[in-house]
Amino acid sequence: MDTTPLDHAGLEVIPYDECLRLLARSPVGRFAFAAYGEVVVLPVNHALDGDDVVFRTSYGLKLDAAEDGSHVAFEVDHFDADFRRGWSVLVSGVAERVYDDAEIDRLERLGVRPWVDAPRDAWVRIRPLSITGRRTPSRDAAH
Amino acid sequence: MDTTPLDHAGLEVIPYDECLRLLARSPVGRFAFAAYGEVVVLPVNHALDGDDVVFRTSYGLKLDAAEDGSHVAFEVDHFDADFRRGWSVLVSGVAERVYDDAEIDRLERLGVRPWVDAPRDAWVRIRPLSITGRRTPSRDAAH
Repeated sequence: MDTTPLDHAGLEVIPYDECLRLLARSPVGRFAFAAYGEVVVLPVNHALDGDDVVFRTSYGLKLDAAEDGSHVAFEVDHFDADFRRGWSVLVSGVAERVYDDAEIDRLERLGVRPWVDAPRDAWVRIRPLSITGRRTPSRDAAH
Repeated sequence: MDTTPLDHAGLEVIPYDECLRLLARSPVGRFAFAAYGEVVVLPVNHALDGDDVVFRTSYGLKLDAAEDGSHVAFEVDHFDADFRRGWSVLVSGVAERVYDDAEIDRLERLGVRPWVDAPRDAWVRIRPLSITGRRTPSRDAAH
């Protein structure tokens, strides 16, 4: 029998270690933050550095959020509409811009390459306060 | 020649009408809102009702955000990591819970079915203040 816990919405809770694996192997995630009283969600390609999410950016709202040390979120997911199933992982944490040259050199070797030609010279780190994940229950569990 | 405008990050600007088409045909989007000073991003399956995004939910943070009339965001995207290309559309707007029975009856016929068994009796409507989209430039344009 499947004993995976369900939340109040009927979704399975994904264990922490599996959340980290899903974050690490998702090439793109969504960085969400507040700017001028509005919520903004922008996709970035990222890497995992320990438990931290790191990504490159240039000047703009994403970098402003990091320089402010804002509370932010980062989400990865995958859905299969034909089978009506999927999962998502949400990182809740604090963003910061990375200034240390040695640290930037190390991050440059994580293999995060921009998808477009425009420069993305700044690095942002999200230090997680929580990492949680949910998925649609397996068909057996959903009876 | 491709004359699609690029933004400061080197991304193509997606015209408004195409943003609406992408929103309508994406089965799942991400609802982002602030709760207790933190940013939360949760996936939902949605529909488009005119230019409004509508989705079902049950009690919880998403419904709280709607009942508060909060500023929220809604994002859909699609990425191809092999080809390093993709697009995203961001709705910025105000959420509200739908209470009118006739309106709920109409929304029930939009074909938004929950993916899991747990009840999702409440409807949330996002009235957009802006709808914007970006995509990686075509290879020709990126030279």
